[in-house]
Amino acid sequence: MNIGDSPLLTDLYQLNMMQAYLANGMTGTASFELFVRRLPPGRSFLMAAGLEQAVDWLASFRFSADELAYLEKSGRFDAAMLDHLATLRFEGDVDAMPEGTVFFPHEPILRVTAPLPLAQLLESRLINLIQLQSLVATKAARVMLAAPGKTLVDFGFRRAHGAEAGLMAARAAYVAGFAGTATVLAEMLWGIPIYGTMAHSYVQAHEDESVAFESFARARPDNLTLLIDTYDPEAAARKVVALAPKLARDDIVIRSVRIDSGDLVGLSRRVRAILDAGGCPDIRIFVSGGLEEGQIAAIVESGAPIDGYGVGTALTTSQDQPVLDIVYKLQEYEGVARRKRSAAKQTFPGRKQVWRTRAADGTIAGDVVSLDGETLSGETLLAPVMRGGERVRRDPSLADIRARAAAELAALPKALRDPLHPGPYRVEIGTALHDLTAAVDRRIAAHG
Amino acid sequence: MNIGDSPLLTDLYQLNMMQAYLANGMTGTASFELFVRRLPPGRSFLMAAGLEQAVDWLASFRFSADELAYLEKSGRFDAAMLDHLATLRFEGDVDAMPEGTVFFPHEPILRVTAPLPLAQLLESRLINLIQLQSLVATKAARVMLAAPGKTLVDFGFRRAHGAEAGLMAARAAYVAGFAGTATVLAEMLWGIPIYGTMAHSYVQAHEDESVAFESFARARPDNLTLLIDTYDPEAAARKVVALAPKLARDDIVIRSVRIDSGDLVGLSRRVRAILDAGGCPDIRIFVSGGLEEGQIAAIVESGAPIDGYGVGTALTTSQDQPVLDIVYKLQEYEGVARRKRSAAKQTFPGRKQVWRTRAADGTIAGDVVSLDGETLSGETLLAPVMRGGERVRRDPSLADIRARAAAELAALPKALRDPLHPGPYRVEIGTALHDLTAAVDRRIAAHG
Repeated sequence: MNIGDSPLLTDLYQLNMMQAYLANGMTGTASFELFVRRLPPGRSFLMAAGLEQAVDWLASFRFSADELAYLEKSGRFDAAMLDHLATLRFEGDVDAMPEGTVFFPHEPILRVTAPLPLAQLLESRLINLIQLQSLVATKAARVMLAAPGKTLVDFGFRRAHGAEAGLMAARAAYVAGFAGTATVLAEMLWGIPIYGTMAHSYVQAHEDESVAFESFARARPDNLTLLIDTYDPEAAARKVVALAPKLARDDIVIRSVRIDSGDLVGLSRRVRAILDAGGCPDIRIFVSGGLEEGQIAAIVESGAPIDGYGVGTALTTSQDQPVLDIVYKLQEYEGVARRKRSAAKQTFPGRKQVWRTRAADGTIAGDVVSLDGETLSGETLLAPVMRGGERVRRDPSLADIRARAAAELAALPKALRDPLHPGPYRVEIGTALHDLTAAVDRRIAAHG
Repeated sequence: MNIGDSPLLTDLYQLNMMQAYLANGMTGTASFELFVRRLPPGRSFLMAAGLEQAVDWLASFRFSADELAYLEKSGRFDAAMLDHLATLRFEGDVDAMPEGTVFFPHEPILRVTAPLPLAQLLESRLINLIQLQSLVATKAARVMLAAPGKTLVDFGFRRAHGAEAGLMAARAAYVAGFAGTATVLAEMLWGIPIYGTMAHSYVQAHEDESVAFESFARARPDNLTLLIDTYDPEAAARKVVALAPKLARDDIVIRSVRIDSGDLVGLSRRVRAILDAGGCPDIRIFVSGGLEEGQIAAIVESGAPIDGYGVGTALTTSQDQPVLDIVYKLQEYEGVARRKRSAAKQTFPGRKQVWRTRAADGTIAGDVVSLDGETLSGETLLAPVMRGGERVRRDPSLADIRARAAAELAALPKALRDPLHPGPYRVEIGTALHDLTAAVDRRIAAHG
């Protein structure tokens, strides 16, 4: 069993509610929407990602024999429910924003329409899948804005929260425009380009740094990058200069050096000078080491001669904001709009669409959250993804998703482009949605 | 394939280094140690967890036919390396702190001793496995200290970073003393007790809150908890009071009510008063909703009549500190101690042990990091776990691990017990380790 496929990636209360719904015949059609209630501090926009994994999970949704046996043995559920689960498949509808789309609070990014007990059961894993990739795609987009034109690589598998998190982070960063990742399995699974250099331990395992460089170069001559900060980066840069002509005689080219610690701006300038003076102007400088978009923006601003950045922990954990206030809420049951009114957690009822308008230069100018079925001006962001449990079209390729994400970032207005000073964006709640909200409140009050 | 098992959960540079080591015959025995370089801000101790999953991964370490075919097709590696990988197994040694152990910076929590190319390859996934569970066990331990004697339940699967993260968080929280989790698959996999109530959507799906309560109670009479904050918690509490005698006639007992939003201290007092006045003094009050240890400590301090807490996002993402500065460093190769000296990232060389002393009352009083093989006073924290690739004993049960964690928390000195005001703890570097560090530096300088 691949644990990521399990329908038991859910909270017990979902199964409790399913049992109650089945016992009470409440199996009508429900629509739930996934949305973010507020932007994390410091963020001016979010980028949607993870839809493909969500659809994969729904398309293959089924309880295995082991899972059914476990549920029966637990004694919590009646025979009718266990029979129901044995043949349960996802045969509902999904509408969603394509991956790579920029979105904002209160905008549904995914809607599930299915029988109430099943639609409810899906909540925990759908949030779990969409939150992580959207968090990391957003973080990666911020790094892209901080370092335009630079080679950006995900180095963060090791401190991601588990295997799935590390892999999905690699995918989400690639969606947002990163050149690739260091995580090998991400290439095998999804064809994401992988990058790799050497670690300090390689140098440490040799008694002499020059010997380590040369042995590595001869064993790994392609895309050769040497790590120069195990001891003294400037001394190591001089060793690189001395080694380059020797390797060149065997047609081995040192492509870049990597600096992983210290004052990256100052070191990169001094190393650049040593490389240039030593006849190695084509060796690129790549840096890493606990970097996030704020430091990268400052380094880029300084004009330091750095060609690429490895971004690790801060990216794959979305370290400064590791959580989205993302929820999946019942919006309609049997054709009737529903709403939660708990303190500070109110939602807008009904099935929704998002309309986006653009300025004359193509930058995005404002969104309106409307009721589904209304016609407003602009373009709609949610599109059909599944109907009756089947995909309505082939999943877009990662190349297509990257192209969409790049276009979305290019269309951000100036106020949203500075990763360090988040600006505002106008999201309105449409008139009909306001009216429906008031009507639902009157109906709840009448039953209060 | 369960992706969590893959040996390709690694960075490309690990495979690059393996190729170089194999090409250069550097296949001698290496020791790498996993440790944390500094405490995250606000933390006064850490709790080790995740060892069982690390050992499982090592014990079943092998490249599948698909993985070998992928590596061959990539064209990056020579035939000798592919042949090597085809039969590669982990036949090395592991020493580690048992799960549930409290630890501090610079103390190795796990040591791998194996041929250099393999020991290096393991780095990425070992850090990835140990970091997450240790982060969450530490966070859960802090919640335990904030709310002694309360029922604490993990509610955070949905916002954990993926499936594996959510499951491992459930396990780590249980290790640290939580009563259980809401995540169903955690019970199936590990027998962790699961808890579940109902969601706001269940109430919203009904036109009337009282009808929703009664239908749920009759369908799910065991361990019955009603969620009372979909609309007005006090009005809902009065509905609970009205419903209780009606259900009692059918032997259905309302065990608790849950409040998931609002002013939990004030609401719990008013709801407690309504329940008590209505003849329901045995109904417990359970709260949830974005809670972390600081708020929980304040609520407990207020004396609010709350019996249990669901802790979600803050727990499973270790939201305030989602990252440990955890590393896996080469400490010895072919019997010679090694050391990294990059700026601000220096490590102590050699294979190590940690000795812990206690005060007369049993609280822990200080640690010394020594060279392995020295004899100091106190108890040692690292013990053999694998020898020659085989477990030296059966994995401890989760019950044993929980007992150890509970004893560790009970033995924390007063300075470390306040989750909001972290106190200091004495960790010394032993004399022999200092001497070795100086000797390694002299050796490196001689080759500089």
